[in-house]
Amino acid sequence: MDRFVFFGGKGGVGKTTVSSAYGLKCARAGLETLVVSTDPAHSTADVFDQPFDDSPKPVEGIDNLSVMEIDPDDEVERHLMETKRALGDQVSPAMVNEIDRQIEMAHQTPGAYEAALFDRFIDVMRDPDPYDRIVFDTSPTGGTLRLLSLPEFLQGWVERLLHKRKESVDLFERAAIGNQEPRRMMEGDPIIARLQERKETFEFAKETLQNEATFVLVVNPDELSIRETRRAIDGLSDHGLSVAGLAVNKLTPEPDDDESGRGARFLRERVATERERLDELHETFDAPVVAEIETRVREVKGSLLDEVAAELDVDV
Amino acid sequence: MDRFVFFGGKGGVGKTTVSSAYGLKCARAGLETLVVSTDPAHSTADVFDQPFDDSPKPVEGIDNLSVMEIDPDDEVERHLMETKRALGDQVSPAMVNEIDRQIEMAHQTPGAYEAALFDRFIDVMRDPDPYDRIVFDTSPTGGTLRLLSLPEFLQGWVERLLHKRKESVDLFERAAIGNQEPRRMMEGDPIIARLQERKETFEFAKETLQNEATFVLVVNPDELSIRETRRAIDGLSDHGLSVAGLAVNKLTPEPDDDESGRGARFLRERVATERERLDELHETFDAPVVAEIETRVREVKGSLLDEVAAELDVDV
Repeated sequence: MDRFVFFGGKGGVGKTTVSSAYGLKCARAGLETLVVSTDPAHSTADVFDQPFDDSPKPVEGIDNLSVMEIDPDDEVERHLMETKRALGDQVSPAMVNEIDRQIEMAHQTPGAYEAALFDRFIDVMRDPDPYDRIVFDTSPTGGTLRLLSLPEFLQGWVERLLHKRKESVDLFERAAIGNQEPRRMMEGDPIIARLQERKETFEFAKETLQNEATFVLVVNPDELSIRETRRAIDGLSDHGLSVAGLAVNKLTPEPDDDESGRGARFLRERVATERERLDELHETFDAPVVAEIETRVREVKGSLLDEVAAELDVDV
Repeated sequence: MDRFVFFGGKGGVGKTTVSSAYGLKCARAGLETLVVSTDPAHSTADVFDQPFDDSPKPVEGIDNLSVMEIDPDDEVERHLMETKRALGDQVSPAMVNEIDRQIEMAHQTPGAYEAALFDRFIDVMRDPDPYDRIVFDTSPTGGTLRLLSLPEFLQGWVERLLHKRKESVDLFERAAIGNQEPRRMMEGDPIIARLQERKETFEFAKETLQNEATFVLVVNPDELSIRETRRAIDGLSDHGLSVAGLAVNKLTPEPDDDESGRGARFLRERVATERERLDELHETFDAPVVAEIETRVREVKGSLLDEVAAELDVDV
């Protein structure tokens, strides 16, 4: 199995449950495991019944398992501060205020949230030690996957900026000292260096996601969820990423054979509907179904998590 | 009831079901009604069993009801083209290529999707005739709500640009013609006009959302969904928007009193868990519970939609 495993799927399908269960399974198998959660509602804290934060923290009572919870709002704030500082070091003091305003405005846009999260995923993948396995409870979405095409854009931009820079240094030196001396290219332009760095970051992300990451999608047995799963697979595939398995969650349990009445009828009909959806998942998707998890009467936590982990047919 | 009604909630909770049912209820009451769907998976088409597109189309067999489906990807593309054209008219041909690259890059960012959708919501609200009621199957999210704070940013930007523009016109005229003539401010700067227009658009959005729109959140009876609902209410309230009601969807039906066995046990325990969640919704939220909708054995469509519409305690 790859070092990085992403569990994707729309909100509410049970990503946190399935990724926590998979993390537990890896830890029980002796792998030093980190679960990275990005749920702003702190649902991982619920599952393990203890608070987590921004840096990896061991789960009490479970060996080899740590959890970190990335808060997207905090990340946007942190990203804002860092960008301001990085650029503040590079431009004249007179421009700092103007640039601050522009950066603040950029961070008000809807994508700031996802972009900051994606940056944080990359940080974790860049420096994975001491973990053998890192489990992300969200896979990159359509929005963040777009960022993977930035390297090509940035490459063009860097080249055009270098060209313009060269022209203007050229003109400046001609004007100042005439044409009699060999001209020296201005080196180490800070803006260009920053663009270059961003370009390399996204190149790293693309390569790592393509070569060292596995994607499992969590799906519920209903039409909407199945359609969204199809879209997610297409989106990933557009960026050269493939899905290794489908974990079907929230299946309705069957009644006993001899049960009758309104409840039994509801369950039987519901199970029949879901059976059609399951067949569709088995027959029309390339990725195999790696789990069929029944709805529990309460939220999955504590010993229920071991039960779910046992139902996951995903390698550790 | 306000002219614009938004049904919010995370993916999978049943926004499309509830908003379609509410649209049907309004139409049955004689209001000329439009349901605006933004689901890329075209679930509204499923509910009414006919295809829709980008412009309002009457629902066959149901008087007074029309549906339009906004595809976010198409919107990003359309937005890209429009922005290119608008700016292309305003700058020198030499700059067009450079600007095209920059605009394309901006549209690769994760927020482009949400921003384009939000723009489209505003278009619909700006020109609501001939509809008495317009029902949106998604309410603005944290990401798009941030856009409502843009007017203040843009105001500052417009003012600073005007100031700089004035300075440079000043300098240019001094250099060209000396100080002997009265100087005329350059009028109708196209970039400033565009910023001004954006600012007014977001101001309109803010005012309309605050004064002519109602928000109903769709929630499922589980901890995660309840927590997300709390966050959504906080996010809306940060922008002066309040939630008029909670529509609880996907409740488990009860078995008959005399049923026993594995199925009946599951249903009773599950109903007991959901009853706790329902109590929490009734007791700890300011917004009233306006619907308690049971899970059906199949997806809600056709005559089932009238059933659900009857269960909605939301004014028409």
